[in-house]
Amino acid sequence: MENTKKISATSELRQDLVTGEWVIVATGRGKRPDDFVAEDRVIDATAPDPFADPDASGQEEDVLIYRDQNGAWTTRVFPNKYPALTMTDTVEIIEEGPYVGVGGYGAHELVVTRDPHDHLARLDVPAVAEVIDAYQDRYLTHMRSRAIRYVSIFHNHGPKAGASLSHPHSQILALPVVPVVIQAELDATTRFFRKNKMSPFQVMLDHELSVRSRLVAENDDFVVFCPFASRTAMEMRIMPKQPQPYFERITDAKKVALAEVLQAALKALDRGLNNPDFNFFIHTAPCDGWDYPHYAWYIEIMPRLNKIAGFELATSLEIITVAPEDAAVFLRAQL
Amino acid sequence: MENTKKISATSELRQDLVTGEWVIVATGRGKRPDDFVAEDRVIDATAPDPFADPDASGQEEDVLIYRDQNGAWTTRVFPNKYPALTMTDTVEIIEEGPYVGVGGYGAHELVVTRDPHDHLARLDVPAVAEVIDAYQDRYLTHMRSRAIRYVSIFHNHGPKAGASLSHPHSQILALPVVPVVIQAELDATTRFFRKNKMSPFQVMLDHELSVRSRLVAENDDFVVFCPFASRTAMEMRIMPKQPQPYFERITDAKKVALAEVLQAALKALDRGLNNPDFNFFIHTAPCDGWDYPHYAWYIEIMPRLNKIAGFELATSLEIITVAPEDAAVFLRAQL
Repeated sequence: MENTKKISATSELRQDLVTGEWVIVATGRGKRPDDFVAEDRVIDATAPDPFADPDASGQEEDVLIYRDQNGAWTTRVFPNKYPALTMTDTVEIIEEGPYVGVGGYGAHELVVTRDPHDHLARLDVPAVAEVIDAYQDRYLTHMRSRAIRYVSIFHNHGPKAGASLSHPHSQILALPVVPVVIQAELDATTRFFRKNKMSPFQVMLDHELSVRSRLVAENDDFVVFCPFASRTAMEMRIMPKQPQPYFERITDAKKVALAEVLQAALKALDRGLNNPDFNFFIHTAPCDGWDYPHYAWYIEIMPRLNKIAGFELATSLEIITVAPEDAAVFLRAQL
Repeated sequence: MENTKKISATSELRQDLVTGEWVIVATGRGKRPDDFVAEDRVIDATAPDPFADPDASGQEEDVLIYRDQNGAWTTRVFPNKYPALTMTDTVEIIEEGPYVGVGGYGAHELVVTRDPHDHLARLDVPAVAEVIDAYQDRYLTHMRSRAIRYVSIFHNHGPKAGASLSHPHSQILALPVVPVVIQAELDATTRFFRKNKMSPFQVMLDHELSVRSRLVAENDDFVVFCPFASRTAMEMRIMPKQPQPYFERITDAKKVALAEVLQAALKALDRGLNNPDFNFFIHTAPCDGWDYPHYAWYIEIMPRLNKIAGFELATSLEIITVAPEDAAVFLRAQL
């Protein structure tokens, strides 16, 4: 935080005075207020695919590219053409009366696989492992930026999950703040450990592997299960069998094992629910210089089968109509 | 919490081991896993309106009814035919290994206004005040139940906001737990007060009334503004000018004043954005027997102009593309 300035950047992060929640105000993305009239985010299947040939369609330059033995690209990573955050020379502190914010410092990148239709559920395991390798590679680059404190990696599939393009892609957002939900998980983990001398993640993992009623898939290194307190019907969580805080330290062998269960979990959804819209995202410890020994990284997969309505927004308390145990039976049957 | 039993109730509340977040698992609402295949919640405008004549369409019996001078009903409240929670004789504690839950004890009611099309933006102020009176009346009833700790009042308008029926209605959920987001607000308020000897809500209100750049509407008792850290484009917050913790203590005179600004805020959205989908909900102090002197109740209005995507789910950190100051200018211009 090198500089204090009262300015309006292209984008800025603003913090809620009460909750500490951050939002990104990205007016540079080109919307005016009345652009919202009757807007609906639908995917136009007839529109040209900007990721079919990223060079020709004027995407930003690649920061990472994978090629097959013939030299054809298979996976590539490039900055979002409409970034929510960008690397700037300094990190501006924004102040307005009692409020604080931070200039929109960070990075916003896309991880694109070649096939315009086959999403991760339908790619082979090595192709999924390549995507996970790309996540790790970019994570390791971003965490070296002094002002980056958290790197969020997520994937939106389908319009109900917020995807605006049908060509499969993941997104990486490198942030100068630690999100409140992550901080809340870290705090809760510390409290649980102080009380029980165990990580809550280890307790959960031991219990799920013991009762097995919510398991969907597993291999030697990873387990996929429907969480006891699932936030959406058919939610799945992927955890390493040996929990550890930092996703970015995953080994090459474990990347393949992770690809195997991620692909299986997405395939169960694809087959069982006829290619539903979904989000998945990685929760991992911040890269803010502190140590979080009792935290554990995991992947959350949330099918978007119901609308998020007023009750969920008001209370963050969701109503699910399929018990996680029934969801696990249903999903296992697809594999 | 009178009873401990390891059972699967029609519905149950389950708590996340790490975050403490609650979910309601309501399998009694009649969905099987494969009912989700290709499901999309759309409003069928040709379907008969079950709220046009609630008696004839077999709704539950009214718990509250308002009539005009001719005896015709104007607003009525009855239990949801498909309740997420119901009043039971005892509150069951559910245990499974390290996990805990609570039987689905509570209430789930609908507040229905008579006109099948005119929503709150288009009703007159006395009609909106009647709805607010119904909220308060039912709140006061539910808080007398010994096991009820929080009453959530919310309104979903339009399919993107999760409404499954087009006939305007609000919902009331009386809960045996305090939602984590409310607890987080209470904790943050206490921390802020200890540090600054002021309520963060009072600080926010003083600042907004002083800078005025984010104000949308006001009267002697209430102010409507776009929050500095808005979570959606065009979000609005309604606060009493004299903050106080408990919504249910609102006086008759203030109910009319609240109806005036609520109606104005919704009218600004309706006119400016051509009847967009939205949610609004009341945040208020729990009715769990504790005192929360520094908290302040408020109404949050969230237009649903963008999809909630993976980044928002992963981080609770949202990206908005209209600055709250620009939103306020736009919304003010509609009034």
